[in-house]
Amino acid sequence: MEIISQKLTKSNFNEFGDILSIENEINYTTINNGFTHKYDLSKFIGNKNNASNKVAISIFRGLKRPNPLKINMLECHPLGSQSFMPLNRGTWVVIVCKGDREKPNLKDLKCFIANKNQGVNYFPGTWHHPLITLEEKQDFMVVDKKNETDKNLIEFCFNDINVKL
Amino acid sequence: MEIISQKLTKSNFNEFGDILSIENEINYTTINNGFTHKYDLSKFIGNKNNASNKVAISIFRGLKRPNPLKINMLECHPLGSQSFMPLNRGTWVVIVCKGDREKPNLKDLKCFIANKNQGVNYFPGTWHHPLITLEEKQDFMVVDKKNETDKNLIEFCFNDINVKL
Repeated sequence: MEIISQKLTKSNFNEFGDILSIENEINYTTINNGFTHKYDLSKFIGNKNNASNKVAISIFRGLKRPNPLKINMLECHPLGSQSFMPLNRGTWVVIVCKGDREKPNLKDLKCFIANKNQGVNYFPGTWHHPLITLEEKQDFMVVDKKNETDKNLIEFCFNDINVKL
Repeated sequence: MEIISQKLTKSNFNEFGDILSIENEINYTTINNGFTHKYDLSKFIGNKNNASNKVAISIFRGLKRPNPLKINMLECHPLGSQSFMPLNRGTWVVIVCKGDREKPNLKDLKCFIANKNQGVNYFPGTWHHPLITLEEKQDFMVVDKKNETDKNLIEFCFNDINVKL
C-alpha cells in the first residue's frame, strides 16, 4: 500500500484540525496600542469536557527518518488536542486519518507536506503519525494535555505503508 | 526613572515564569522510536483552579516601537499563564514586575533581553509589559487562557519610565 502526499492547506486539513499559520491570513485584531497584530488560530485547543485542565508546553526536536519513508503505526489523543509549531526552517510531514476511537480507517489515510510557517493543532481523536521532519533536525513547540494517565494515548499498528513524498 | 536591561536566563527569570528554550538544556526524553527528543519546559501552564479550561493559540505579530523606549503601563492575567515563543529571528524584550493583584511594585521592575530561541511563560499574576520586539516585525506563538470574561486582565498605568536597552 502507498499514500501520496499533497501540500497542506487550510481547506484540505479542516476535518483533522487547525492550521497554525498566518500565511495569506487577512483577519487580525490590532492590540497593544497598535504595536501588535493578533491572529486567532485555534478553533479548539486544550481538553475535552471533564478532562483535567492541565496543559503542557514542550519543545520536540524531530530527527530525520530513513528514506524512503514507511509508516506502520498511528496514534490518537482522545481527551485533548495536540499542536505542533515549527520553530526553525524546514519541511515536515503531517499524516492523519479519520476513524473511530478503536482504530483508524486506513483507506482514508492522508499525507500533507507542511512548510516552516505552518503548524497544526490536531483535534482530540484525530489519528496521526508521530512527528516526521524532512530535515536533519527540526524543533517544534508542542502544546498538549499534561500526561497524567495513559488514557489519552491510543496506538494502532499495521503493516508497512510506503509514503511517496 | 529608568530601568536597565539584562540578558534573560533561567535563573534570573524563575520567579516570574518559565523560560521556553532548549539552549544548554541536557535533560530530555527520547520518544517516537528514537526519532524525537522531548524537552518538558513549563512548570505551570494553563489555568488556575476553578477557572474555565479553555486555552487559546494565537500568533502575535509584534511591530517595532519608538526608540528610545519608554513604558507607562503593565498588565497581569490573574487566572492563567501566558506564553510567548518567537517564530523567527530577532531580539525581544521582557519587562516584568512582582506585586499584588492590585498593582505592581515598580521598585522591583526588571527588563530582560531575550534572543530568538527564548520564549517565556508568565505565571498567572506576573505583571508584565505587552509584547516588545526590537525588530521591524517579529511573530510569536502565544498560548493563553481563552478570553471569555475580562476578569483575566488587570492593567496598571504610571508615568513614563525610560528603558535602557
